[in-house]
Amino acid sequence: MELLNFLTSSAELSSGSGPEDHVVLSSRVRLARNVNGVPFPGRAKKKVRQEACDTIKPLVSAASAMRGGFTAGMEDLKALDKQLLVERHLISREHAAKGGGSALVLNKDETLSVMVNEEDHLRMQALMPGMQIKQAWQKIDRFDTSLEKKIDYGYDASYGYLTACPTNLGTGIRVSAMLHLPGLVLADQVNQIVQAVTKLGHAVRGLYGEGTEALGHIFQVSNQMTLGESEGEIIERIHKVVLQIIEHETNARANLQQAKSKELYNHVGRAYGVLANAHIVSSKESMNQLSLIRLGVKLGMFEDLEVAVVDELFLVTQPAHLQQFVGGKLSGEERDVHRANLLRDRLSGVKSVQFPK
Amino acid sequence: MELLNFLTSSAELSSGSGPEDHVVLSSRVRLARNVNGVPFPGRAKKKVRQEACDTIKPLVSAASAMRGGFTAGMEDLKALDKQLLVERHLISREHAAKGGGSALVLNKDETLSVMVNEEDHLRMQALMPGMQIKQAWQKIDRFDTSLEKKIDYGYDASYGYLTACPTNLGTGIRVSAMLHLPGLVLADQVNQIVQAVTKLGHAVRGLYGEGTEALGHIFQVSNQMTLGESEGEIIERIHKVVLQIIEHETNARANLQQAKSKELYNHVGRAYGVLANAHIVSSKESMNQLSLIRLGVKLGMFEDLEVAVVDELFLVTQPAHLQQFVGGKLSGEERDVHRANLLRDRLSGVKSVQFPK
Repeated sequence: MELLNFLTSSAELSSGSGPEDHVVLSSRVRLARNVNGVPFPGRAKKKVRQEACDTIKPLVSAASAMRGGFTAGMEDLKALDKQLLVERHLISREHAAKGGGSALVLNKDETLSVMVNEEDHLRMQALMPGMQIKQAWQKIDRFDTSLEKKIDYGYDASYGYLTACPTNLGTGIRVSAMLHLPGLVLADQVNQIVQAVTKLGHAVRGLYGEGTEALGHIFQVSNQMTLGESEGEIIERIHKVVLQIIEHETNARANLQQAKSKELYNHVGRAYGVLANAHIVSSKESMNQLSLIRLGVKLGMFEDLEVAVVDELFLVTQPAHLQQFVGGKLSGEERDVHRANLLRDRLSGVKSVQFPK
Repeated sequence: MELLNFLTSSAELSSGSGPEDHVVLSSRVRLARNVNGVPFPGRAKKKVRQEACDTIKPLVSAASAMRGGFTAGMEDLKALDKQLLVERHLISREHAAKGGGSALVLNKDETLSVMVNEEDHLRMQALMPGMQIKQAWQKIDRFDTSLEKKIDYGYDASYGYLTACPTNLGTGIRVSAMLHLPGLVLADQVNQIVQAVTKLGHAVRGLYGEGTEALGHIFQVSNQMTLGESEGEIIERIHKVVLQIIEHETNARANLQQAKSKELYNHVGRAYGVLANAHIVSSKESMNQLSLIRLGVKLGMFEDLEVAVVDELFLVTQPAHLQQFVGGKLSGEERDVHRANLLRDRLSGVKSVQFPK
């Protein structure tokens, strides 16, 4: 099956809102595992890496959780395909740069994915919509347990799972939630929250982790420590932190509605007005304006706009998805025009609620 | 008659488009005159100034051209009324600051106005829509001639008409055209044009002459010299210059449509999108966005938006007009909200033409 056809059908399965999705866009748990006695991918000679990949790939794709899924060597994926996968958070940018000797295995609805020979021999993740940190943990834990029966993981009795980078040593777990925090940004409170969360030992970064800039008011919260705590404790701590952030964001939105309603309507109205009428829109602007529209939708400011439409636009206005949509390679300038066309097309008929005068 | 009632009815008379109004918003000719043997207003004692006003005012308002018009001492006008008159270009900011001993006389359709005891005893202007420099000159010349039969003007055989400021000496004439030049601004050619026009001995400045910043892409071109040339020569020269600017602006717009149509649609679309959806809009932003919408209307980008609606919005979104519209004094913040309400109300139902993909 072609990747594009696969992603089209899998997206239909995975779309749909999750719990607390007014704030939590997605929850993710990933585990880093390595094969006992085989050098880490970054250390292995090409032949050894290729052999490891050839051994691991079929074991992963034969797992029952991967039934109806998608498997490919990275050398078989086109550049655009790889970029699509990055935009869907299914592989890392680093993995997208890999060729032979690395692979990807996806399950049927994109909730489970395994990168073979990224930094570690196995990087497996469960990615679920909304606030489903615990569900994602259960999913990946079950999958990991089933895989452990077939693969001899590198494990040390005192350190735990061995990983290429010491920051992953022990549990090898990275738990993260993608949070939409426009209320805290508009209320100028987001830095306080970021500092508090960081002090509690969690990492906070903007979408795709590009510096500190948070495109689309989207922040990723994740655990820093993988050693000295059990997976259950790590999950529990980050779960609590995310619940607190949800509460802060919800309060910030309520405050804006009560005390700064004109400013709020102004932000959301302008964002809608621009995207429904512009003819050139950059990826960055698209993210930031869609973020404000999403906030407006969740606060009931639009009569006939579903959050699913906005979330789809978040995805399909990104470079690779846009080129897939148009069906051809586009320059940066061409993308900005096609992105604007797509946004106008989807948004221009929508009725926005007028502010009570 | 109350000023507000008068302005409402006179605006109906004076609205309507003039020749070349895709570029020329209005044409104006003003003359500075003084009464022989009476000290200039800035030099006269209060009593003398009051006496001069009491003498001049009835002579002016009795002129046949002023039949059905409006006359008032500046002390009788409220602050808001004065600001309304400034926004309509019927009095200067300096005259608005005057009280007793100064006056204003307007004709029925606001095309003729006389400030009594501004800088000179008489500052009379003809203001007409579109490219009507010559018509405005004929109008004010006729009026001046009729007045000269009743008032003994200060005149010197070698210098010409005597004026308070030497920059007006001689003919006392100031000819100006208000030009809408968004094409030249967008094409980044407006500075060239301004420099060329300045070299030819004309002054160019932004709307209301606030520094060099041209609000709403509106520029005023006027003569610098009042001495050494006849009125006819001055009129002829500025007429030619304005015709040349019209040609440049028209070419710039055509070029944008052909070579940069996406950018053009993008500018106009965004301006429309913002004003039709924003909930807080400053006076400055309103001007600049309306300017782009006006350009779009004149280039046929809107199905059902008349340029008269845009021109009315230019006027009624200004502070005093907005307060008149709402019917009460408003703070700056309140004005920005009411301005946005008004703009959304007038613009949100409009159909903008979509760019051919």
